[in-house]
Amino acid sequence: MKIIIVGASGTMGRYLTNAFGKEHEIITAATKNCEIQVDIASTSSIEKMYKQVGAYDALISTAGPTYVGPWKKLTDKEFRKGVDGKMMGQINLVLIGQHYINRGGSFTLISGALTHEPQLNFANASAANGAIEAFVKAAAIELGEGIRINAVSPTVIENSPQYFPFFPGDIPVTMQQLEYGFRKSVFGANTGQVIKL
Amino acid sequence: MKIIIVGASGTMGRYLTNAFGKEHEIITAATKNCEIQVDIASTSSIEKMYKQVGAYDALISTAGPTYVGPWKKLTDKEFRKGVDGKMMGQINLVLIGQHYINRGGSFTLISGALTHEPQLNFANASAANGAIEAFVKAAAIELGEGIRINAVSPTVIENSPQYFPFFPGDIPVTMQQLEYGFRKSVFGANTGQVIKL
Repeated sequence: MKIIIVGASGTMGRYLTNAFGKEHEIITAATKNCEIQVDIASTSSIEKMYKQVGAYDALISTAGPTYVGPWKKLTDKEFRKGVDGKMMGQINLVLIGQHYINRGGSFTLISGALTHEPQLNFANASAANGAIEAFVKAAAIELGEGIRINAVSPTVIENSPQYFPFFPGDIPVTMQQLEYGFRKSVFGANTGQVIKL
Repeated sequence: MKIIIVGASGTMGRYLTNAFGKEHEIITAATKNCEIQVDIASTSSIEKMYKQVGAYDALISTAGPTYVGPWKKLTDKEFRKGVDGKMMGQINLVLIGQHYINRGGSFTLISGALTHEPQLNFANASAANGAIEAFVKAAAIELGEGIRINAVSPTVIENSPQYFPFFPGDIPVTMQQLEYGFRKSVFGANTGQVIKL
């Protein structure tokens, strides 16, 4: 299976590249340090990536830039980081990528527990996650040709201890649990699901 | 109670203005045909509205421009209608409005059943709704000073029969049910809730 991993230079992306690379052809993409350079906040950059890769079987996204910071200083300007990044960046990966993906292929996006369990300073990520989860359900009934779409929704992950203080009481998701979440989406038959970890 | 209704020229807004106007001071706002002219896609227009109104007790939004149309033609451009309108328009009503609202005041935004029950042609509204519902939960733990925030989430409403064909099997929400949903948010004590109708 030919799998594109967007965000492959990050903590999650590197782990998934290693895990799935044993049995599949992985194309790594990120803003830097990957085979393909892509900025998901730019539709022309996304288009260019798909043109370079050609037909593929699965797109995994672990790319989710959002604004983290105090509520009182939050304005439209800061909020657009998550809107253009984690939300529209991932939505555009699907809207554009549907024209390049093979029949029976799949999209797996990243959302997060903040959709339903907010934490202080993360309102931007909550909104972006909520948009992604609802979009995945809507896209699932539209895509056709056996193409599937799901979102993986972890809470804080074990390899990012710098975030632990922001998620009091959340038991960190292990990297293996994360891998299995993506595994369920990419290699299973589900569509329109939010896979909560 | 001094209540601003944004979207007051629309089907829902007119009904709520009439219903709540019997006992409260209503300030009507919309792009046209209201006391105050406001374009929620513009932060400067929102700021101007709040400066005109001054301190207030409740903000009700029934304003939700989104793109409705075939999935295959959906690009970033069409998608931005709901992002800048129903999503960021309403989020900016809160981010800006929090600096003008009285202690103990409330925000009530509009989302919709499409968050969890997608329909063909409405992916843009699904995403915007999902963002609003997650935002409301995040904002509820941030606002402070007794300020509350909820979303009202109807399916298709009885006074908009032009939408019935797009929502097969959905029993239309009556205008009175809609009124009671907003009533629960504005005059109740809940916060961070999605009131499903």
